[in-house]
Amino acid sequence: MTTTPTELELQETIRQLTERMDALEKSAGNDRLSIGVMSGNLDTTIAAFIIALGAAAYDIQVDMFFTFWATAALRDPKKSVAKGFMDTMFGWMMPRGSRALPLSKMQMAGIGPKMIRSVMKHHGVKSLEQLMKDAADFGVRIHVCEMSMGVMGFKSEEMIDYPGIDYVGVGSFINMISESKQVVFL
Amino acid sequence: MTTTPTELELQETIRQLTERMDALEKSAGNDRLSIGVMSGNLDTTIAAFIIALGAAAYDIQVDMFFTFWATAALRDPKKSVAKGFMDTMFGWMMPRGSRALPLSKMQMAGIGPKMIRSVMKHHGVKSLEQLMKDAADFGVRIHVCEMSMGVMGFKSEEMIDYPGIDYVGVGSFINMISESKQVVFL
Amino acid sequence: MTTTPTELELQETIRQLTERMDALEKSAGNDRLSIGVMSGNLDTTIAAFIIALGAAAYDIQVDMFFTFWATAALRDPKKSVAKGFMDTMFGWMMPRGSRALPLSKMQMAGIGPKMIRSVMKHHGVKSLEQLMKDAADFGVRIHVCEMSMGVMGFKSEEMIDYPGIDYVGVGSFINMISESKQVVFL
Repeated sequence: MTTTPTELELQETIRQLTERMDALEKSAGNDRLSIGVMSGNLDTTIAAFIIALGAAAYDIQVDMFFTFWATAALRDPKKSVAKGFMDTMFGWMMPRGSRALPLSKMQMAGIGPKMIRSVMKHHGVKSLEQLMKDAADFGVRIHVCEMSMGVMGFKSEEMIDYPGIDYVGVGSFINMISESKQVVFL
Repeated sequence: MTTTPTELELQETIRQLTERMDALEKSAGNDRLSIGVMSGNLDTTIAAFIIALGAAAYDIQVDMFFTFWATAALRDPKKSVAKGFMDTMFGWMMPRGSRALPLSKMQMAGIGPKMIRSVMKHHGVKSLEQLMKDAADFGVRIHVCEMSMGVMGFKSEEMIDYPGIDYVGVGSFINMISESKQVVFL
Repeated sequence: MTTTPTELELQETIRQLTERMDALEKSAGNDRLSIGVMSGNLDTTIAAFIIALGAAAYDIQVDMFFTFWATAALRDPKKSVAKGFMDTMFGWMMPRGSRALPLSKMQMAGIGPKMIRSVMKHHGVKSLEQLMKDAADFGVRIHVCEMSMGVMGFKSEEMIDYPGIDYVGVGSFINMISESKQVVFL
């Protein structure tokens, strides 16, 4: 059989459709979820990790972007670094790691977070620290906003050891959400 | 006419494209919206229902997922159930239904919510309670985070009567957002 | 060559696939981002504009929807309009423009926002006011929730001069997110 003009046209249309389909499937990001973590409370940080682990269980690649107040949740209280006056002051005012996070409600001078932790434990919910360990095991990626690190006066040396943790700009966050099915921001 | 090899190949390519298109259209979820409701303030809860009803008016299927503090908005103050000490204490500290929700700002010892309600009424905005009734009429689905119910010590018996309300895990939320065009989390 | 029935069928399938592809590409909104701005704090408003500008730098069309408390960030403190008693009272209680926004944390009776502004300046981060000017230059669109304007008692005459700023209903927000790749709500 000789290829007719009509068939050539059909073939070209199909080739173009396939290209467009490839591009659309990639951008649909059905196997990726981005989570923006900003408010830096115990409750929102726990929620972020529960969503991350829920998605990871469905083989969805999760990228968490920690920015502003939430960066403090990633401080390692056992590490300390020399800083200038302003950074030291800020570091002193901000929570020193996950165990020092406040609640968004019912803070009650520090009793609230202890109470929520106790009740969650009682109901068999993993601690935030355990959720973070699980996230590492499940390949959840953690990215930290570089600019926020600067503003808060945090150094990468005082942050937790988390596999592959990196310090990135807002452009990385834009790329992340562009290739994700959804973004949850909390 | 006999089918030529080239045509068979074309047909196979088209069959595959159609399959990929079906899958992509389903996952695009252009007719679905998920709303995560977590912070449990009067203002954010009103916003959640206004967005839900706005979407429903465009024939978009809306799934609301109530978690953490927001579960308290769904308590029915007229219902009460027997509970253990800890759950009773928590239940006492948490708002008892939509009429008891605080504002995220300008709480002013309870004057803020009353003032906002009065001003919204004056401007012809429906009350939260009316928005919830409308949501039921428009087929907006409400799902409540099972784990949060446990942590807050709430029983399904003390929640509002809402058609089809169900108590689900985080996996349901992941499925919901995977099949939605967008997720709004507030 | 004469067109065979099989070829006609193939052509029809391809035509349908192309139509579905067109629709899907449009709804995918890969070149659009919606940002819902509600909480109206200095930190969340800065974050909203940094994300907006980050996306605009990638040639993504950004639509910001200001609602509830966030509308106050768009007041121009140099403008004033005559209002009734209730609106005047509300206007007096709400921040008068971007320079009066509180922080979501560490407000410390007004010292917090000044401190954050000073530290951000020190780290070379643009001020919120500069970010807003840049957003205008980059074609970021700002839409304000009409209903919130009414509830807060704000008049369009007291809002900032921003190119193309408009006052819209929730339906516009639904359309916006329906045609966007993502929505970030903060």
